[in-house]
Amino acid sequence: MPHLVILYTPNLEAQTNMTALCRALADTMLALKDESEKPVFPTGGVRVLAYPAAHFAVADDGTAGKAAGGDGDYAFVYLNLRMARGRSAATQQSAGEALIASARSHFAALFEKRHLGLTLQIDEGPEVFDARQSNLHPIFQKG
Amino acid sequence: MPHLVILYTPNLEAQTNMTALCRALADTMLALKDESEKPVFPTGGVRVLAYPAAHFAVADDGTAGKAAGGDGDYAFVYLNLRMARGRSAATQQSAGEALIASARSHFAALFEKRHLGLTLQIDEGPEVFDARQSNLHPIFQKG
Amino acid sequence: MPHLVILYTPNLEAQTNMTALCRALADTMLALKDESEKPVFPTGGVRVLAYPAAHFAVADDGTAGKAAGGDGDYAFVYLNLRMARGRSAATQQSAGEALIASARSHFAALFEKRHLGLTLQIDEGPEVFDARQSNLHPIFQKG
Repeated sequence: MPHLVILYTPNLEAQTNMTALCRALADTMLALKDESEKPVFPTGGVRVLAYPAAHFAVADDGTAGKAAGGDGDYAFVYLNLRMARGRSAATQQSAGEALIASARSHFAALFEKRHLGLTLQIDEGPEVFDARQSNLHPIFQKG
Repeated sequence: MPHLVILYTPNLEAQTNMTALCRALADTMLALKDESEKPVFPTGGVRVLAYPAAHFAVADDGTAGKAAGGDGDYAFVYLNLRMARGRSAATQQSAGEALIASARSHFAALFEKRHLGLTLQIDEGPEVFDARQSNLHPIFQKG
Repeated sequence: MPHLVILYTPNLEAQTNMTALCRALADTMLALKDESEKPVFPTGGVRVLAYPAAHFAVADDGTAGKAAGGDGDYAFVYLNLRMARGRSAATQQSAGEALIASARSHFAALFEKRHLGLTLQIDEGPEVFDARQSNLHPIFQKG
């Protein structure tokens, strides 16, 4: 049900392990509990997909970054989680806080080294139609 | 007007023909009729774009999939159709049912062979601004 | 804060300079002023990311395009700007008009040569959670 899509500038591709970030965020989602200590997301429904852009432009042309001692090459990571309707505001907040903490931790070293922006937004899906098919969910209900 | 964007795990790239899926879904959209037997979407406005992720994480680390006799490599396909406001709920439902049927048919053989999840969601565009330019529409109004 | 994501058919990759389009659109966003002559977007918050699809289908199978004297290979560019809530409708409109003008200008020559559709939609972010970390903003507040 939840989809976390990561869009990022390709200048990060060689500087960080995005597969590791995907796994860390998925694990964060899997560990989330709601007010009644139930998992917020079903295991089989957790999906994180990351996409480097082919082309991009961030902020100015690099002038300010160079003036600030950087190389003028800005990076950006956008994390967008879409979850189904009906979860409490408290659950949405705690999910967001856990995910941004996980992302900040992943990028902590890189923030020391380069110009980088990180944004996480959570949307409640506004879908007017929803259908699915999966042979994933059953394997997490066994045993 | 309608955009169908497909996001999927890259482990599917060699296992299915995604261009064929795009064409099948576009043809499904082109064949849709509303309650008064008019086409739901204009021919020149039908667009399907598919994107394999560069990095991903789905569900657990593969443990449950292996325990269930799979290889622990989960796949996922997310189909998101954005259509303009103003269509009836019945039209939205029949569009959704036709598209998920088309996607299920495309992946039927693969569902027998691997762990795979498929989700289709339709959104009514919430845009606050909309502009376009196209030399496509006129060619479908000739003849 | 604003993210402009461009999704496009890969048949445009060799026909236009998408990095130049990203820069032109970012510059357009940076130049926008609201009713009180303040910048609409902070410099460090302007991000444009462009993604060619790996697979696609547009309109019919090419029959109409060939009948109209083209090669039946349709192209499509979708520009989606997501901005934070709270800006006036007038600001949203003028942002949209400036951006579509910039995109039209970029593609003007290509519109003469091939079948191409261009759509810009602006959404007001419906997020239920928003968090960010950036070392970009401060460098644009210096001097």
